[in-house]
Amino acid sequence: MNLKEKALAVHQKYKGKLSVEVKTPVEGEEDLSLIYSPGVAEPCKAIAENEDNMYNYTIKGNSVAVVTNGSAVLGLGNIGAGAAMPVMEGKGALFKLFGGIDAVPLCLNTDDTQEIVNTVKLLEPTFGGINLEDIAAPHCFVIEEQLKKELNIPVFHDDQHGTAIVTAAGLINALKLAEKKLADIKVVINGAGAAGVAVVNLLLSMGVEDIILCDSKGPIYEGRPNGMNNIKEDLAAQTNRKKEDGSLEDAVKGADVFIGVSVAGALTSQMVQSMNDKAIIFAMANPDPEITPEAAKEAGALVIGTGRSDFANQINNVLAFPGIFRGALDVKARAINEEMKIAAVYAIANLISEEELHSDYVIPSPFNEEVVSRVAEEVARAAIESGVAKAVGQEEVVKV
Amino acid sequence: MNLKEKALAVHQKYKGKLSVEVKTPVEGEEDLSLIYSPGVAEPCKAIAENEDNMYNYTIKGNSVAVVTNGSAVLGLGNIGAGAAMPVMEGKGALFKLFGGIDAVPLCLNTDDTQEIVNTVKLLEPTFGGINLEDIAAPHCFVIEEQLKKELNIPVFHDDQHGTAIVTAAGLINALKLAEKKLADIKVVINGAGAAGVAVVNLLLSMGVEDIILCDSKGPIYEGRPNGMNNIKEDLAAQTNRKKEDGSLEDAVKGADVFIGVSVAGALTSQMVQSMNDKAIIFAMANPDPEITPEAAKEAGALVIGTGRSDFANQINNVLAFPGIFRGALDVKARAINEEMKIAAVYAIANLISEEELHSDYVIPSPFNEEVVSRVAEEVARAAIESGVAKAVGQEEVVKV
Repeated sequence: MNLKEKALAVHQKYKGKLSVEVKTPVEGEEDLSLIYSPGVAEPCKAIAENEDNMYNYTIKGNSVAVVTNGSAVLGLGNIGAGAAMPVMEGKGALFKLFGGIDAVPLCLNTDDTQEIVNTVKLLEPTFGGINLEDIAAPHCFVIEEQLKKELNIPVFHDDQHGTAIVTAAGLINALKLAEKKLADIKVVINGAGAAGVAVVNLLLSMGVEDIILCDSKGPIYEGRPNGMNNIKEDLAAQTNRKKEDGSLEDAVKGADVFIGVSVAGALTSQMVQSMNDKAIIFAMANPDPEITPEAAKEAGALVIGTGRSDFANQINNVLAFPGIFRGALDVKARAINEEMKIAAVYAIANLISEEELHSDYVIPSPFNEEVVSRVAEEVARAAIESGVAKAVGQEEVVKV
Repeated sequence: MNLKEKALAVHQKYKGKLSVEVKTPVEGEEDLSLIYSPGVAEPCKAIAENEDNMYNYTIKGNSVAVVTNGSAVLGLGNIGAGAAMPVMEGKGALFKLFGGIDAVPLCLNTDDTQEIVNTVKLLEPTFGGINLEDIAAPHCFVIEEQLKKELNIPVFHDDQHGTAIVTAAGLINALKLAEKKLADIKVVINGAGAAGVAVVNLLLSMGVEDIILCDSKGPIYEGRPNGMNNIKEDLAAQTNRKKEDGSLEDAVKGADVFIGVSVAGALTSQMVQSMNDKAIIFAMANPDPEITPEAAKEAGALVIGTGRSDFANQINNVLAFPGIFRGALDVKARAINEEMKIAAVYAIANLISEEELHSDYVIPSPFNEEVVSRVAEEVARAAIESGVAKAVGQEEVVKV
């Protein structure tokens, strides 16, 4: 069987990938009387008195809803809520396997931004966090922004921030090899969807000053007459300060870094040759990158990363989201903020020591067993330091 | 430790009762490439082509959402969505332990009927069935009715139908002992909430002709000037044909059956004495029944059942809902209709043979291991016969 056949076979054999299990011991009638009627009334009353008791007596504190509407699934586009379910279950599996988190897939049958926001708001009591997944831009920005404002639990759109965080971690390490500083580099990002926009925002908050974001019409700049929207206008005000016009080819001239979240073949060997010395390239188009690692290296690139596991330097979100949610849940963080994302970037980058670091190893393996705990620790610390969580021992005493 | 302390301790020790687990083998990178990117694209594409493929490749076909807004939890009233979570997790545990079903608790933070309906509609692709739980009357009727109309998966409000089904099963067996027929008996039901209304409807569809439903104002009859609503007007048109007025005490005179879903002490010994010979009483107020079994028997009752596990003849919903959903899911039923409910009634009743049957054993034990499979089998058969499911082998062929 080839991969396609094997994938269908395993899904069919097990009828999906997740199950809901009972984690308390149930050996007889007495156990049932504790976990259901009449004993169950006691935790209910304790929570009715103080909702924080949900973290003591229910699964809330270890659970995340994986929410999608199926509008931007893998490279398949808007295939609908039901067809997104295998990805959401897979994501749930990764949450469990890597982060020990109980993740519940929720596929919502709507393309209406406000309906998604309302639904997740109504579900807030049930979950400790919300992972938005595979929701198309620009809806995803509006949904995440509004939910972050209105909910008291962490909300995280992985397609945006997971990709941005792992890319930034790779960039930090690649810059060590190139002996360049964030504040001095010129970065060109190709692709203004969910991931591209998040990369721009994260790099800006990490101190990168010279960024040009390109879409299919070329560099985005303030006042560009065509193909703009609110999100692009906002970013234009913070990037491309010389208002460079023209094409992607023009933009990459002299750039130190190219980050592609666009389409196969978008970056040519000639364009790499036109970049600055020790060029750093993250070419994440799936399944075929903007340029192959071989071609990029031949054209003089110092570091090349892609989204693929069969090449070096894989940008894999699983390096980020399990540890980020693990850390946020561990300290009951009310949000996942910029400080926590940046903490995750450096935690991932620092898993590779200066001795180990080389051009084909700027990003740790997802199977590095230290990743989740190190990311979780740093994210939890950043949550406390930035004021969205309380240090252990400093929580208000919960009445029982 | 007493029960209260033990119940809190077990909830705190395990932080709730459910977990989400990965049921497919994951031993290395290849397994991950099948259950997540890139292999996961294959079941997604198959479902995008034909949504029925969800039953082949996802957990949909074995999963039920346990949906509440926390407005009528146990005897605690409207304690809110979060405080209902321990009961919903407990229900999920029963679904798994008794029915092998993956149940996901969803606590919705709203008292708005339409918001609940909309949310469940949006979630339809994710689940194979919807179990409504602990939603206050009369909202629960509107919500269930509307969802049944609009969804293509089974919707079942357990507080209504679970109680009604198990009570009716007990009644079938008690009538064998009393040598009376459904069509000949006079039934008085006290309590016009979710369970009371469902009992009336189920008994009507099973062929009981003489029913009086009482609320706190006494018997409900057509045109009663006070305390009526749409639901009660509808039921009044089908019950109490002599338009008996007065009190509960008046209504039970000469009755063959009393069914209480009301409050402790509502039925006195004098009232039992005023009933017909071989009176049958199901006194389900919790934790203290409308009359104690001892007092009922002393007053001449033939059969007395309650909601309690420490008395004989426990009316326990767990006899019904796991097998009903198991049967419905097994044949991908589009609904749980009257025929399926009645099939469950007789499946439960028939678990007790005529030889075993006696006044303290008209309802099987929830720990009888045959209950779920027998109920599931009969419910599945009724689903096929009533046209809400296709017989195995007669499904349309699903394209892969």
